Amino acid sequence: MTSSNAISPAAHRIVVVGAGFGGLEAVHRLGGAPVQITLVDQRNHHLFQPLLYQVATASLATSEIAWPIRHLLRNRPDVRTLLARVEGVDKEGRSVLLEDGASLPYDTLVLATGARHAYFGRDEWESVAPGLKTLEDATTIRRRILLAFEEAERESDPERRQALLNFVVIGGGPTGVEMAGTIAELAQDTLVREFRSIDTRTARVVLIEAGPRILPAFAEELSHYAHRSLEKLGVEVQLGAPVTQCTEDGVTYGGNRLPAATIVWAAGVQASRAAQWVDARADRAGRAIVESDLTVPGHPDIFIIGDTAAIAMPEGGVVPGIAPAAKQQGAYVAAAIRRRLEGAPGGAPFRYRHQGSLATIGKRLAVIDFGRVKLRGALAWWIWGLAHIYFLIGVRNRVSVALSWLWIHTRNQRSSRLITQGGQALRLRVKRKEASAEAGRPEV
Amino acid sequence: MTSSNAISPAAHRIVVVGAGFGGLEAVHRLGGAPVQITLVDQRNHHLFQPLLYQVATASLATSEIAWPIRHLLRNRPDVRTLLARVEGVDKEGRSVLLEDGASLPYDTLVLATGARHAYFGRDEWESVAPGLKTLEDATTIRRRILLAFEEAERESDPERRQALLNFVVIGGGPTGVEMAGTIAELAQDTLVREFRSIDTRTARVVLIEAGPRILPAFAEELSHYAHRSLEKLGVEVQLGAPVTQCTEDGVTYGGNRLPAATIVWAAGVQASRAAQWVDARADRAGRAIVESDLTVPGHPDIFIIGDTAAIAMPEGGVVPGIAPAAKQQGAYVAAAIRRRLEGAPGGAPFRYRHQGSLATIGKRLAVIDFGRVKLRGALAWWIWGLAHIYFLIGVRNRVSVALSWLWIHTRNQRSSRLITQGGQALRLRVKRKEASAEAGRPEV
Repeated sequence: MTSSNAISPAAHRIVVVGAGFGGLEAVHRLGGAPVQITLVDQRNHHLFQPLLYQVATASLATSEIAWPIRHLLRNRPDVRTLLARVEGVDKEGRSVLLEDGASLPYDTLVLATGARHAYFGRDEWESVAPGLKTLEDATTIRRRILLAFEEAERESDPERRQALLNFVVIGGGPTGVEMAGTIAELAQDTLVREFRSIDTRTARVVLIEAGPRILPAFAEELSHYAHRSLEKLGVEVQLGAPVTQCTEDGVTYGGNRLPAATIVWAAGVQASRAAQWVDARADRAGRAIVESDLTVPGHPDIFIIGDTAAIAMPEGGVVPGIAPAAKQQGAYVAAAIRRRLEGAPGGAPFRYRHQGSLATIGKRLAVIDFGRVKLRGALAWWIWGLAHIYFLIGVRNRVSVALSWLWIHTRNQRSSRLITQGGQALRLRVKRKEASAEAGRPEV
Repeated sequence: MTSSNAISPAAHRIVVVGAGFGGLEAVHRLGGAPVQITLVDQRNHHLFQPLLYQVATASLATSEIAWPIRHLLRNRPDVRTLLARVEGVDKEGRSVLLEDGASLPYDTLVLATGARHAYFGRDEWESVAPGLKTLEDATTIRRRILLAFEEAERESDPERRQALLNFVVIGGGPTGVEMAGTIAELAQDTLVREFRSIDTRTARVVLIEAGPRILPAFAEELSHYAHRSLEKLGVEVQLGAPVTQCTEDGVTYGGNRLPAATIVWAAGVQASRAAQWVDARADRAGRAIVESDLTVPGHPDIFIIGDTAAIAMPEGGVVPGIAPAAKQQGAYVAAAIRRRLEGAPGGAPFRYRHQGSLATIGKRLAVIDFGRVKLRGALAWWIWGLAHIYFLIGVRNRVSVALSWLWIHTRNQRSSRLITQGGQALRLRVKRKEASAEAGRPEV
């Protein structure tokens, strides 16, 4: 196709599916190139996933970490943004098939459709142990956490009350660590003075990790530091304890049964269906196995990047599914497309540069693993905070998030403690005895 | 009951149902009184309704106009906050009956349960013409407005495209006027540069009022000013045109049929069921007809205030269902209860002091009717804006809303243009032709 591009570059049509970190970076880097870009996403917003756990824990508002995609690209007349769901790809006909029956012809296709959380084949767990990938996931988890305290306040039966005050986070990666730490702070700190019947400090937050340590992607010393820090916050960390059952009223792990109304799933992800759309070989997580130039074997006109691609690293293992990696791939693809349009020879294979791993532990601590340099504690937290504010898009949201954090740290006020989603809002997740006619109504 | 209170005031139990402007004001004014207060609400947050239309039009985030009730009362150990739904009142047994079978005994009951929008017996219209009373209402309307533009961008059929770009607001009160003006600004201003296939300025915004003029609660000259100002913004105002039909694809009014994918209901409200709970006489809107001291006839221990009470005014008519009126009633009830606890004689009947009517028209104009003094235009808008920021609770939200408005007015950025509510997010509200196998997939 390189030649065909060289012939009429102006007509070169690029379809990018997914406006996450990878897809958006590719579009940005293609600015000014003689191409027509169509960016397709099933949501109308780009989401800053690294801070999604703060929406789930009432620290940030949804609009503080999400931007309308077409607003981000308003100054790019060469880019058309479409809100639509993709259901497949016609590789021979070179068109993307949309769920509503339409199709999008392309000369070059970039698939950057990300990943969802996975339940290792136990999909029935999703309803009781929601994961954290979308704004709706976050507001659902927020609703459940806040409701658990509300219901505990009303609960007279001690066992059910404790079950409502037990919070389980499954998965010891950064998201799990950050969720567990923040839930512990809600219970130990933010909410303490606001309830009359319960002492929110009696809440138990249990972080369950199947592996031998939390934050496995970090140096062992940082894992241990994070582990100790979580325990200081009041989080119980359970290692080497795979979860064997999740139900509406609790979890079973390593032979133990823990009654809990609130379970958060932060273990394992499953790539989007992009690999299936193009019949590419995939690894166990469903990630398409791509060439070293991020194209699909046999299809140089199709790139797959981000969490939905499996890219082997020379040093072994695959590129991690994190924002910086996706951005590097988006930039690489943009450069590769530019070279092709100029009829230049293909460049060097994609090479991932790991810039470091960051994770916060509650409100004022963090761990950062830069490889040679390792940071922990308050300094790491400041670097983490400033880095995240820097990476937010636009002054408006930087100011807004900075203010929200200022209030959390100085006034201990979390800005979005809202239980929304109407009808469900009062669903009790731990069964209560029905008031029998004879017994009459229990007074509360 | 006055005597019984006099005997053991410390034991006096007050149940307040509803944490809106009226209920919350009553609780605040009872601070320090020898009572035990239980505040019951079916939501966990107090909502600043006057700015709800700005959430519906993507100008403000939900958390900027809503506060967790128990956080507002964290320094009031005498107040217990309960998240629960009330289903009735046992007047003889003096207890509030909760939906989940429990009951709340009271010595004095304050019902401040507000109102919902009403469809004059055409409840089937609610699904196609949502009203604006809760945060979910607002995010639903926001989703529909933003989706309409997204779908229009994809629509090839000119008729369906225009139907997607037709926005109907039913009801010419302040909410209707504010909704219509802001939708017009979205189309004429905010969104203009962001679409490639459609010109958002071709959107039609139609405000339909059954009566002879919009803003009937205002002086006639201000109504006419608002009318002209809306037309300058591009809003078509239809007067004396009662709506006779609302369907998924349009409205019928005064004999005309207007195809429209987005319909917003801002006409008429129906009081909550409080009157039925206590078998009180009610007016046509379901508002309980109360004594001049806001108690239920024959039940001096039950107060009904706010939008769910019909309070006759000496000068004729009833007290309007607006925030300042509800607050005055809350304050009056608190004072009346204090008098009773002291065994003092009942005070003067409730007297409503109208402080003025305010309404904004789009981004920089407003009308204010103080009675003798009448303001319009930019000055009125500044007064409106400062007044609303002043009445917001807490520095955090004042700063946040001020910032959001600053960005809207200086950068023309609206902070929360998010289409959420997951699964439904891509539902098309105007039928599209199915792509038939023969016809093949239409390219877009």
